[in-house]
Amino acid sequence: MATGLEIITDKDQMRKWSRDMRAKGKTIGLVPTMGYLHEGHISLIKEAQKHTNLIVVSIYVNPGQFSPSEDLSTYPSDFQGDIDKLKVLPVDVVFHPYNLYDYGNIESESKCNDPISSGSGSESGRSGVVSCVEDRKLGHETWVRVERLENGMCGKSRPVFFRGVATVVTKLFNIVEPDVAVFGKKDYQQWRIIRRMVRDLDFAVHVIGSEIVRDADGLAMSSRNVRLSPKERERALSINRSLSRAKLAAENGQNSCRDLKDLVTQALLEAGGIIDYAEIVDQESLEAVEEIRSPVVFCVAARFGAVRLIDNMEINV
Amino acid sequence: MATGLEIITDKDQMRKWSRDMRAKGKTIGLVPTMGYLHEGHISLIKEAQKHTNLIVVSIYVNPGQFSPSEDLSTYPSDFQGDIDKLKVLPVDVVFHPYNLYDYGNIESESKCNDPISSGSGSESGRSGVVSCVEDRKLGHETWVRVERLENGMCGKSRPVFFRGVATVVTKLFNIVEPDVAVFGKKDYQQWRIIRRMVRDLDFAVHVIGSEIVRDADGLAMSSRNVRLSPKERERALSINRSLSRAKLAAENGQNSCRDLKDLVTQALLEAGGIIDYAEIVDQESLEAVEEIRSPVVFCVAARFGAVRLIDNMEINV
Repeated sequence: MATGLEIITDKDQMRKWSRDMRAKGKTIGLVPTMGYLHEGHISLIKEAQKHTNLIVVSIYVNPGQFSPSEDLSTYPSDFQGDIDKLKVLPVDVVFHPYNLYDYGNIESESKCNDPISSGSGSESGRSGVVSCVEDRKLGHETWVRVERLENGMCGKSRPVFFRGVATVVTKLFNIVEPDVAVFGKKDYQQWRIIRRMVRDLDFAVHVIGSEIVRDADGLAMSSRNVRLSPKERERALSINRSLSRAKLAAENGQNSCRDLKDLVTQALLEAGGIIDYAEIVDQESLEAVEEIRSPVVFCVAARFGAVRLIDNMEINV
Repeated sequence: MATGLEIITDKDQMRKWSRDMRAKGKTIGLVPTMGYLHEGHISLIKEAQKHTNLIVVSIYVNPGQFSPSEDLSTYPSDFQGDIDKLKVLPVDVVFHPYNLYDYGNIESESKCNDPISSGSGSESGRSGVVSCVEDRKLGHETWVRVERLENGMCGKSRPVFFRGVATVVTKLFNIVEPDVAVFGKKDYQQWRIIRRMVRDLDFAVHVIGSEIVRDADGLAMSSRNVRLSPKERERALSINRSLSRAKLAAENGQNSCRDLKDLVTQALLEAGGIIDYAEIVDQESLEAVEEIRSPVVFCVAARFGAVRLIDNMEINV
């Protein structure tokens, strides 16, 4: 149990802490989060603990991965509750920056989620996508793109998402300078993208994927689950239930992805879900496959009410 | 004078050297080069020496910043000559990797500069640009984009160039982990892009811009100058001569950029140069200005024979 949990908000102070600790021979694990911590996050911390002496948990809701039309302003947060949870864990530092994109030269105040200013797009550069960072006119213009892996699945419906994730993780790696970083495999595409980015940009960070944590009813834990009504939650269980059935069918020899996807999409539609995608893809390349002949992952994104949920199951046949 | 110049080709060995030195309290300066060293590079090394205890010079011709139609295969090189020059300087390590984009999973051999395979574009992702890295099918797919600064001037005629530069510099920063990096202001746009990237991605590297070094006749030093015939070289002097005249005129009160640009373009055309661009831009934003009212830089790119040359002069009125 940690005796003194330190909260650091300043970038330079955070880096100094890490360098002081490294100079003392310590290794540092980073668990990046957007806060509103649940058992899933706790499992990431426990995973990190296996690999390093010290643990930094970052809590930062990253505007770079939200488009102006998405739920940045309503993303759940409870900083004091998060701290209470972390205090009883072996966490050494909470890195909680106010704004990672503020370089002391803000052109105007935040306007994200303001329908008048949203989507003006004047700052979008060549890529044609705009996040809440451009929308706030903070002057930030450098983005890390993982050009193939970012295209499919969540990248299709959320064009700024992975660019924002890869960029903020780069920033966090450069500020915290960890030896190990742990990401949840619930965000499977994100985890693969971060691993590819680390390889391609030669980061000295070992990236670990941590298994999905589910509630007793099987729903994959997510900070967004809190926004589901009891009825929506019951209907959302169709995701993990149908994925489990598909996985079992595949393990029993059903290798037609079309049939397996039919099984899942039918269950989701019957439960009133609005499907964003249901895809069976190669675990490494994330390219869609038609027949299961090597390790794949079945990934789903669907909305129940106003809440977009994602889940996945690896199928290793 | 350095007693033992160490040549390191392996990424992990390079990083280990840097970390060992940092643990001993040393600071490290990085001078990234593509080799074929001249007095301009030497001045970068001397600048780095003012700021750090130890100096790493990287020599790596980066395929990520060349398009398949550019001069990667004919870029001049003389590794032994470079080492001879560095041996008598206070340089501690030459980092000379064979291939920074080889992750042990090469799909096929290099085909860059092979007209049959060039420009197939199948690996280009969303950005619509292809470098010799995609062309070689090395599997690398992560790119750092500085979305506004990369658009103008050299970015217009060389669409993969700054993406490749920002990416390889990110890799070098992550491998060498320097405290200071020195870039030549001859590549003015590149220098501004690296500074912006360092700010936006929170790299713990202090970037220093080093002044242009010119030959006795005024030509800005460049590894490509060796490919100019004596006659072409004489004609290429029109670049620095006309830029000097424009600078003087501006300092004497001429603030119309149109007139100043006319002065330079006319001189270049008369000398038989083929102008890529001649632009007067804000020193920070690199946006074109019409009247000089704040610090600007006059940037020129022009071809003489087969050789594309760039040069610039800052005008601080």
